[in-house]
Amino acid sequence: MDLIKTLEPRSIAVIGASRNPNKVGSAILKNLILGFRGQIYPINNQTDELQSLKAYKSVLNVKDNIDIAVISVPAESVLKVLKECERKKIGLAIIVSAGFSEVGGEGAKMEKEIRSFLNKAKIRVVGPNCLGIINTDPPFNATFIDPSSKVLKGAAGFISQSGAILSAVVDDASVNNIGFSKIFSIGNAIDLDEADIMDALKNDEKTKIMAIYLEGLKDAKKFMKSVTEFSKNKPILALKGGKFDSTASAVASHTGSLAGNYKVYELAFNKAGVISVNNIDDLFNLMRDTPTLKIESKEIIIITNAGGGGVVTADHINQAGLELAQFDQKTTSDLKSALPPEANIHNPVDIVGDATPDRYKDTLNILTKLKKPIIVIFSPQEMSMPIETAKEIYEAHLRNPAIPILSVFLGGTRVERARRYLLEKGMPIYSYPNEAVDVIKGVYTYYSHKEPTFRLYESKKYKIRKANISKNLFGMPAKKIFEAMDFSTAAGAIIEKKKDVLKAAVKIGYPCVLKVSSDNIPHKSRVGGVIPAIMNQDQLVKAVGLMDANMASEGVKKYRYELYEDANKFGEAPLEILLGAHRDPQFGPMTGLGLGGVYANDINETEFVLSPISDKDISNLRESKIGKILSKAVEPAIFNEIIDYVLKLSHFMDANPQVKDVDLNPLLVFKNRVIAVDFKIFV
Amino acid sequence: MDLIKTLEPRSIAVIGASRNPNKVGSAILKNLILGFRGQIYPINNQTDELQSLKAYKSVLNVKDNIDIAVISVPAESVLKVLKECERKKIGLAIIVSAGFSEVGGEGAKMEKEIRSFLNKAKIRVVGPNCLGIINTDPPFNATFIDPSSKVLKGAAGFISQSGAILSAVVDDASVNNIGFSKIFSIGNAIDLDEADIMDALKNDEKTKIMAIYLEGLKDAKKFMKSVTEFSKNKPILALKGGKFDSTASAVASHTGSLAGNYKVYELAFNKAGVISVNNIDDLFNLMRDTPTLKIESKEIIIITNAGGGGVVTADHINQAGLELAQFDQKTTSDLKSALPPEANIHNPVDIVGDATPDRYKDTLNILTKLKKPIIVIFSPQEMSMPIETAKEIYEAHLRNPAIPILSVFLGGTRVERARRYLLEKGMPIYSYPNEAVDVIKGVYTYYSHKEPTFRLYESKKYKIRKANISKNLFGMPAKKIFEAMDFSTAAGAIIEKKKDVLKAAVKIGYPCVLKVSSDNIPHKSRVGGVIPAIMNQDQLVKAVGLMDANMASEGVKKYRYELYEDANKFGEAPLEILLGAHRDPQFGPMTGLGLGGVYANDINETEFVLSPISDKDISNLRESKIGKILSKAVEPAIFNEIIDYVLKLSHFMDANPQVKDVDLNPLLVFKNRVIAVDFKIFV
Repeated sequence: MDLIKTLEPRSIAVIGASRNPNKVGSAILKNLILGFRGQIYPINNQTDELQSLKAYKSVLNVKDNIDIAVISVPAESVLKVLKECERKKIGLAIIVSAGFSEVGGEGAKMEKEIRSFLNKAKIRVVGPNCLGIINTDPPFNATFIDPSSKVLKGAAGFISQSGAILSAVVDDASVNNIGFSKIFSIGNAIDLDEADIMDALKNDEKTKIMAIYLEGLKDAKKFMKSVTEFSKNKPILALKGGKFDSTASAVASHTGSLAGNYKVYELAFNKAGVISVNNIDDLFNLMRDTPTLKIESKEIIIITNAGGGGVVTADHINQAGLELAQFDQKTTSDLKSALPPEANIHNPVDIVGDATPDRYKDTLNILTKLKKPIIVIFSPQEMSMPIETAKEIYEAHLRNPAIPILSVFLGGTRVERARRYLLEKGMPIYSYPNEAVDVIKGVYTYYSHKEPTFRLYESKKYKIRKANISKNLFGMPAKKIFEAMDFSTAAGAIIEKKKDVLKAAVKIGYPCVLKVSSDNIPHKSRVGGVIPAIMNQDQLVKAVGLMDANMASEGVKKYRYELYEDANKFGEAPLEILLGAHRDPQFGPMTGLGLGGVYANDINETEFVLSPISDKDISNLRESKIGKILSKAVEPAIFNEIIDYVLKLSHFMDANPQVKDVDLNPLLVFKNRVIAVDFKIFV
Repeated sequence: MDLIKTLEPRSIAVIGASRNPNKVGSAILKNLILGFRGQIYPINNQTDELQSLKAYKSVLNVKDNIDIAVISVPAESVLKVLKECERKKIGLAIIVSAGFSEVGGEGAKMEKEIRSFLNKAKIRVVGPNCLGIINTDPPFNATFIDPSSKVLKGAAGFISQSGAILSAVVDDASVNNIGFSKIFSIGNAIDLDEADIMDALKNDEKTKIMAIYLEGLKDAKKFMKSVTEFSKNKPILALKGGKFDSTASAVASHTGSLAGNYKVYELAFNKAGVISVNNIDDLFNLMRDTPTLKIESKEIIIITNAGGGGVVTADHINQAGLELAQFDQKTTSDLKSALPPEANIHNPVDIVGDATPDRYKDTLNILTKLKKPIIVIFSPQEMSMPIETAKEIYEAHLRNPAIPILSVFLGGTRVERARRYLLEKGMPIYSYPNEAVDVIKGVYTYYSHKEPTFRLYESKKYKIRKANISKNLFGMPAKKIFEAMDFSTAAGAIIEKKKDVLKAAVKIGYPCVLKVSSDNIPHKSRVGGVIPAIMNQDQLVKAVGLMDANMASEGVKKYRYELYEDANKFGEAPLEILLGAHRDPQFGPMTGLGLGGVYANDINETEFVLSPISDKDISNLRESKIGKILSKAVEPAIFNEIIDYVLKLSHFMDANPQVKDVDLNPLLVFKNRVIAVDFKIFV
């Protein structure tokens, strides 16, 4: 099915159209009558006429072709009417009826039956449990949102997993002058989901930008493929609801607990160039203005007639991780001759309280030459002329259509008309500085991720076989797996019997560390299972005694001993780094490098990369905080070795899907060597 | 002068009132005529009448008393007319004229002359270089903001260091239904400053909340005293402009570079219970709603008719560091019987899309019993009744006036009337969930800082004499100062001659660390001035040779040696902690505890306390991230010792005002001991 074509129907049936004006089917019919120019067929088996249209008992009674059916009958009748639609060769059914998997039990069973029918059917489905679909060109509104909500025609496609968010956004959008191309409420998405819709809208000329509200994903890989493709040509805005999962159960691995629920979405959005949006007002501003803006520089210019306005805007720019543009000498001297002596000719450029529209114009003429994003602040002061200033800003835009010029008109009644003027001209206009900065940040995020250098990282082909791991491995058994992958590890041995410990120490040397060996104890040090800094034979004997006592008091009966060289013998105090991996059930392996040891729990300073790893991921990792610390603390070869470990670990996760989490915590990092001393694999 | 009384004048003179309608003096006169009910005396030496009022050549020509004079003559005439005002026994002069210290040179000189006149004069002054003052009850507007900007009477006092921010805020406020008690543009504040005004308004019954826009402070101690007093009874909102000081020069000390420019304001605001506001829209919402809200719990209840709305709100609550309230069994069972089966009876409570006003009412009746803040989300859905729902929310408020109920009505045209209704009833009402959460967070910050347990920390009286420090001290000379304060330090010695190094090592023992000793080298390791892990005499001889070679290649001619025990000999790898202090030129000493060593530069995880230290500061420090790390990693006695070091260091800073910065980085922290190994004092 060609969804774009299907969304230009000549005829739509409303199955379950109702005489009761409070019923969903009645609202859908009303919305269609208000805007749809094709044939409408109300389907109702109790009446012959609805809202002045001839009604039919079934779609099968309609002689002409039907392109789309909107189904709003009770859940238990949906399958029956869907079969009739299939027989009638209808291309798309929008099931708005609720009462399926979202209520569980019988509803879930019915949803499953519909799914299995759809497996063999040609008809495609949106929903169930959704609000419906809107197209603005050619127009039809096949939803039950209140007919008083105006839907403007525009450039934004919108997909929402929440019907309530959708109806609120649509109602609010017209007030904010935001238009839509197509709107989808996808509900339980038993057939067409976000990815399918984006795949279709990728080539829709009327959709210049896509906005998505999502709370979860059923098929993250499909989603990633789809958004990656889409965002190559057009921006995607995503508002993720449910960033914090309070119901998430305690996680055994350090890495897993650091990965969190939302982290993986951040990584995924970032990887695919999706603009992650934090709140609904940013979503509005970005929906409206992203299609007209191309922002490839993060160096921002501020022009203001109010010192305080410039100061506040500069703060927001800094907080957002953007920068103030620096001016060359030509620019400052041009500004100097154009502006009065009390003006500030450095960024933020303060053209002073008595700034006339002409002064704005002159300043814009000088600064647009720098080809950087410009924020123009206007504060209503005694001599200010809001409308005339707005006109000059618009004229400057017409002379320099490629330069992003965003306006902030502070104030209320005195600037309302000027704001409205710029809004109607399609200019980015805001009431507060932070709004302009958030938009720049979002659009810049998109364009800075479209770099042509983005490609999958060509790593050495590590010989990583599928390992034979069927249970949690802690300590020595896990160590062997990493040694096979050429990880540098502390020398060590696993020892069955107490009397053999001293023998092992001869080979390993002093100082050494005694650890308990058991796959049932993930956190050895919590049970007295780690005794470090054993300097000689005497101390080792005592350590074994102490270990036995600790295990006895913990009730641990079956265990062996592990003996390792103590890395402190290398003299310098090492950095304790965490290297680990976590498998997200949806998005797959994410591999992390961060502060380790005692810091891991309380300071979440871990940089994750999501498989498959790209060049960009690696350079981000190198430039992250943890990357900077390592690059300064160790020799380049060691830094490269650690980066290599990240790649190896991510490949290991790819090759061994039964592994859920890996902790190498701490990885001891010295100036000229790196040593893994603790090993945990969770399945 | 009693400022409150002075702001209820019977007569106001406008000196520099002008015939030219584009002049500032003309706007002031117009604003006064529009609202002031007392006598107005235009002063102009070129005309007899202005805007239908009799004009006078000088205040001295007016027979009756004048309470306030507004001065808008050219800068060079200000002192002359000010002297006339003093002779006329006018209590307060508002100097709006610009051209003083803000332009430097001659202007700064004139400002100085006015200052020295004021030292002996009785008259008090607001300004110069300001917009003026507004009172709303009894009303007068002695500013030159545009007369079309409406100023509503209300509960907020507002002080602004920026005239442009003030005029924008005032213009925008009336649109947002925000009223003011008194408004002050203070300009260069040569006499009355923020602190004086707050001291006066502390007892002003009409001012229930104070909002301040500030970019800097001339007397931070006075400011702190004033805001601390004020916020004991009424909340203060502060929007700080200029959070990032790009012009700040490079700082030699680690602690200084971590302290930053804005950090000290955050600490100061926090200490005084000032609500720090990040952007102008939050300022508006908080100005409007703080006076009616008392929020003493950070456990928030959400009621929503839209699952997605609840999810997004819960995200904002988590991001703000607030929590979702947990319900007891009685509450969930009450909700269960009141709500339909598809409702979610846990927080966020989802009363489902078809929620009637009655269902909102029932849910509110159950949940107000928990006496926690409630956010009510309304999303316009097919059956929703916005106005009726708004009425039920207001009724619930009337039944439970002490319970904070904040409403978020999502959507546009469909909810506009309902929003307006709640706004007019004085209820906290917002368009987006993040606004409600920001307000709760701000108000909670205020009430959680008003705890009666707040008092200055009663520390042991450390015997800290004023030390004799007149230049930077690095290494051994600084170490001696901390040893005198009972800091535990690594054993060490300072050695003049190469041949004595081996002798010193006999006393100190191996392993040891050789360091260069020089007060000109703050960062020894960068020049090869630190050689650690010297295990024996042989290695020590080599180390001395290497040190000499390093110093030769760096061109360092004059230096001594320092030899320390190597703390790594204690076996375990220590935590590297930074303990340091920085003297803010305005706010005084701030003492910090954070991640040390290589982490200090890239991970700014340092908790600062501002002198004088209170109980609350210490408990915040203990519960900070770095506090949590230490509490888990070391024995309680060691944790207490480290906290004691923070207090000692802060006392040391108090006693030695010539000291600018102190770095003890790293402080090595072992499970059962703490050792300072590096010492830097900057003057």
